[in-house]
Amino acid sequence: MSGPAAQTVGFIGLGLMGKPMARHLHAADVNTIVYNRSRGSLDELVAEGMSGATSPRDLARQVGDGVIIVCVTDTPSVETVLLGESGIEHGLQPGALVIDMGTTAVDATRRFADEVSRAGGDYVDAPVSGGQVGAQAATLSIMAGGTEAAFARAMPLFAILGDRATHVGDIGAGQIAKTANQMIVALTVDAIAEAFSLAKRAGVEPAKVREALAGGFADSTILGLQGQRMIDGAFEPGGRVTVQRKDVAQALDLARQLGIRLPATELNLSLWDRLIEEGDGSLDHSAIIRLYDRAIDGD
Amino acid sequence: MSGPAAQTVGFIGLGLMGKPMARHLHAADVNTIVYNRSRGSLDELVAEGMSGATSPRDLARQVGDGVIIVCVTDTPSVETVLLGESGIEHGLQPGALVIDMGTTAVDATRRFADEVSRAGGDYVDAPVSGGQVGAQAATLSIMAGGTEAAFARAMPLFAILGDRATHVGDIGAGQIAKTANQMIVALTVDAIAEAFSLAKRAGVEPAKVREALAGGFADSTILGLQGQRMIDGAFEPGGRVTVQRKDVAQALDLARQLGIRLPATELNLSLWDRLIEEGDGSLDHSAIIRLYDRAIDGD
Repeated sequence: MSGPAAQTVGFIGLGLMGKPMARHLHAADVNTIVYNRSRGSLDELVAEGMSGATSPRDLARQVGDGVIIVCVTDTPSVETVLLGESGIEHGLQPGALVIDMGTTAVDATRRFADEVSRAGGDYVDAPVSGGQVGAQAATLSIMAGGTEAAFARAMPLFAILGDRATHVGDIGAGQIAKTANQMIVALTVDAIAEAFSLAKRAGVEPAKVREALAGGFADSTILGLQGQRMIDGAFEPGGRVTVQRKDVAQALDLARQLGIRLPATELNLSLWDRLIEEGDGSLDHSAIIRLYDRAIDGD
Repeated sequence: MSGPAAQTVGFIGLGLMGKPMARHLHAADVNTIVYNRSRGSLDELVAEGMSGATSPRDLARQVGDGVIIVCVTDTPSVETVLLGESGIEHGLQPGALVIDMGTTAVDATRRFADEVSRAGGDYVDAPVSGGQVGAQAATLSIMAGGTEAAFARAMPLFAILGDRATHVGDIGAGQIAKTANQMIVALTVDAIAEAFSLAKRAGVEPAKVREALAGGFADSTILGLQGQRMIDGAFEPGGRVTVQRKDVAQALDLARQLGIRLPATELNLSLWDRLIEEGDGSLDHSAIIRLYDRAIDGD
């Protein structure tokens, strides 16, 4: 038997991203075992027909030589799920494949892969772009690092969860591509905020600027979506300022480890820090335009 | 009689952008009179059946109450063509419409419009996005400032030259939108350079990053085109570093006049300055990645 349904899949982390992803697997007839730290989402998916686990360790045991997908908030959460007291490594069976679909630090990713390898398992880092909307619509872009064999094994599952999966390179390469993605997003959002602020101050409606730029060289998905949020003042997240800040800081940590300077990204971090200091950390990252609006109102 | 053919159009500035634009007008049966400072392009277009003028003043006289399009390099060139010794204003007839399709400073644009208005003419600022390719294919994006009536009069000509024209607002509004456009372009090109540099240094091919990001949230025309140039090391311009630097400096001049700070744009200017100092001013702006490559090679 081949195809995704041939593998048992354990899914850890049933948040805004993970819950719809687990549902897509189940709907595709994958034998799906779920675990979540808090009971709400776990009970919900078990009621929908998925199997539940009592801990990551328990889930790993149930999955056997199948696949374990981890979709949790940040690097420390992956560490806990993987290496904690009742973590995956204590139940991992030889032949299992662990796929981390969160945005996790590159150096930690390589360490986690080593730990899993020591326990006889394989590892793929496979962070995604596309957010909650992409998770719900199964239109995520997946950027993966790992061996050819591990990627090939993961691919039928990626095909269920997203509409693009790229094998970027070895372990950590998916996270490196995601870091590049987040840098470009963070710097572009701020570029649009600066451009809109200048236009507004010069007497031109940002909505007119966005209209004039649509379809031209400066156009982008971000100009379309985050630009519209800036115009509407619609700052409910979406992609939170604190998350954007974390991703940019992670990029700079990596740059520091590699001994390179990224001046625009460094400046960008200071802008997110200021926005958080001023109380806007829980808003959508398009709220960076408020920094400029306040500077203008305040002078 | 109505339609573009009803107006005589004078076209000043037959460079990489202007020459194909004048040809499109002529091909659309517009009575087109051309002028260029150096004779080469002028003689060429006259040989193709267009009328020639001996100076901007002569051109303005010949055009009568028609339309004069100016498509020259920078603000001082517009000033010379308009207000110089043998400039347009000395031959301008009441009822004429002057359209500046170059990228010109906002404050100068308002002054030029006042001068033309005093001579009984009307004015539209209508900078474009799309470059030489867009000029040749008549697919320019045109961003226009001026009165409703002047924009309506220019519109049939814009329809010949481009595939989008947006009436952004009053005099200068087209230039403000273009400034916003150039800021977003400049900052995005550098964002991609920083992201690619980090990936490369971390052991991942930028080509793989670009592939992984294509179609996702961070994707853009600039990532597609300038990203590919960075990957290929193909730095023949295209959009020159010196021109990009001029546009960013112009944005910061406007910000200064308006009393606002644009920290990311300020940093961006310093990067173009450094790139020019290091001898890369005549390359395509995607060559900004060379700053990072050299920093890496040098440490």
